Amino acid sequence: MKEKIAVGIDIGGTNTVFGFVTETGEVLHEGKIKSKGHKNVNDFVILLTTTIKKILNFELNHFDLAGIGMGAPNGNYYSGSVEYAPNLEWKGIIPFVQLIKDHFDVPVILTNDANAGALGEKLYGGAKNMNDFIFITLGTGLGSGIVSGGKLIYGHDGFAGEIGHTFAVHNGRACGCGRKGCLETYASATGIVNTVKELLNNCETDSSLRGVENGKLNSYLIYQEAKKGDKLAIEAFDFTAKILGRTLADSVAYTSPQAIFLFGGLANAEDLLLKPVKHYLEEYILNIYKDKVEILSSQLKNGQAAVLGAAALIWNEV
Amino acid sequence: MKEKIAVGIDIGGTNTVFGFVTETGEVLHEGKIKSKGHKNVNDFVILLTTTIKKILNFELNHFDLAGIGMGAPNGNYYSGSVEYAPNLEWKGIIPFVQLIKDHFDVPVILTNDANAGALGEKLYGGAKNMNDFIFITLGTGLGSGIVSGGKLIYGHDGFAGEIGHTFAVHNGRACGCGRKGCLETYASATGIVNTVKELLNNCETDSSLRGVENGKLNSYLIYQEAKKGDKLAIEAFDFTAKILGRTLADSVAYTSPQAIFLFGGLANAEDLLLKPVKHYLEEYILNIYKDKVEILSSQLKNGQAAVLGAAALIWNEV
Repeated sequence: MKEKIAVGIDIGGTNTVFGFVTETGEVLHEGKIKSKGHKNVNDFVILLTTTIKKILNFELNHFDLAGIGMGAPNGNYYSGSVEYAPNLEWKGIIPFVQLIKDHFDVPVILTNDANAGALGEKLYGGAKNMNDFIFITLGTGLGSGIVSGGKLIYGHDGFAGEIGHTFAVHNGRACGCGRKGCLETYASATGIVNTVKELLNNCETDSSLRGVENGKLNSYLIYQEAKKGDKLAIEAFDFTAKILGRTLADSVAYTSPQAIFLFGGLANAEDLLLKPVKHYLEEYILNIYKDKVEILSSQLKNGQAAVLGAAALIWNEV
Repeated sequence: MKEKIAVGIDIGGTNTVFGFVTETGEVLHEGKIKSKGHKNVNDFVILLTTTIKKILNFELNHFDLAGIGMGAPNGNYYSGSVEYAPNLEWKGIIPFVQLIKDHFDVPVILTNDANAGALGEKLYGGAKNMNDFIFITLGTGLGSGIVSGGKLIYGHDGFAGEIGHTFAVHNGRACGCGRKGCLETYASATGIVNTVKELLNNCETDSSLRGVENGKLNSYLIYQEAKKGDKLAIEAFDFTAKILGRTLADSVAYTSPQAIFLFGGLANAEDLLLKPVKHYLEEYILNIYKDKVEILSSQLKNGQAAVLGAAALIWNEV
């Protein structure tokens, strides 16, 4: 019998990446196409499926295709559609599962990118032996996937797990969602840039970030300067960690996870972010949860995480 | 074959009530003993189990005992123990499941009272056809049980679902847990009494509650005066609803429930609490969840809810 293989697809705002993943998490082939610039979504799907089929035809002597998993912003597990994703070119409700099924006669599963990441962490990352954990992506925004009793929490409509849009600061920063004070306006790459801008405006502290052109200030630069000892950059990390740690204390009161995984560029800032997040989590957490919850950086490789997570959707159900 | 019956036990701070419940939710016998005043927990268990056995022996010609379900503050589903319950006389860790099993050779299951209530709502109340909902008890404090994908969320340690101890107001009212601003310091019988006291101190509004002796001010009186049109009492309900509705907007972002059930005396205040909670929930909720979540009062009968919920633990697993 031939070995089974799953295709994982991650549809992002700029690029769509895909990979052929074995059940043990080996990524055999990877590829990508641009998400933008297609006449319509059908043209995008035709390019995507033809590109995948070329590789697949080459591999079908060795493998059977078990299914196709997809992660996408606002991807809905139940409806199989991407619904009103702000960062994608195609507006409204896009029935991606059906569009892909028109080209492949295999199970096709869609969910949002953070949920896919959470499953990837469970199958191939640091959550292999965990049934209760939270997976947080710190990127432009803050995404989250919550696993409880071994299963992703989808909610009755497929949209559960939006910790980035819980209130971290009442009447706080304006969020893209139209509300104020959402966690992702503080704890994200965008959030820490805005924190630095606020600190630069509100204090006189000397900082190497003071000279940086507005458009060139980004989270990686803040990270580099903080590593070098820049006080304002360090303060920005500490502030971010405090808001995130305090909000995660609430998260724990909901699902009592064994660990919270942080994923994305900022999550690599061990001393600057992970340790202070843990510190503030313990400061704010309810006593019954004290010293029980680990704050860990994701063990998924940055370049492969999205594809592994999307493929995990198939391996999790097959 | 004889019909099966479950015993539901609810261990409260003052009384412990129990009942014999059929699978369809009919309560055949009810009884209660005092929780307080026993020499030790063994004496309490002996009195409880002998009382139950007397009724059981009478009924064993007609029924087989399927199991015993227990709800208790800080009851832990995994360990079978009540752990450091502030309102019970017995301190530390009390292994109630084992203590009951010493007297009955049937499955014995324990969880906290709000979780038991949530299961009761699912089996016998308004959540019969729901797989995703939240059950909130508004009593002295605020308890919660969260059902996701048809199952109670227990978390890795059995203590998930403490929405009463999420931060509703940062640096807000002092909570019994030692932290500040927990939801239950606002949204509970105690919370609304404190809200009225604050309003009486901070404003000149004429109110029939102004003359009430300190010890006699309670949530039912506030409810009665609000019904009569007392502006300050109405304002207290509105404030409570605002804090609760706003915090529940966060709850929805975690588990995306179909409905949130409110249980307890305050939950009967349809126009004064339920409707405004719904109003504020919709005001604060993330747009993808708008107009999807119902705010409902529990359909469990107040007097039988605890016993039904505890028995539901058995019927849910058998």
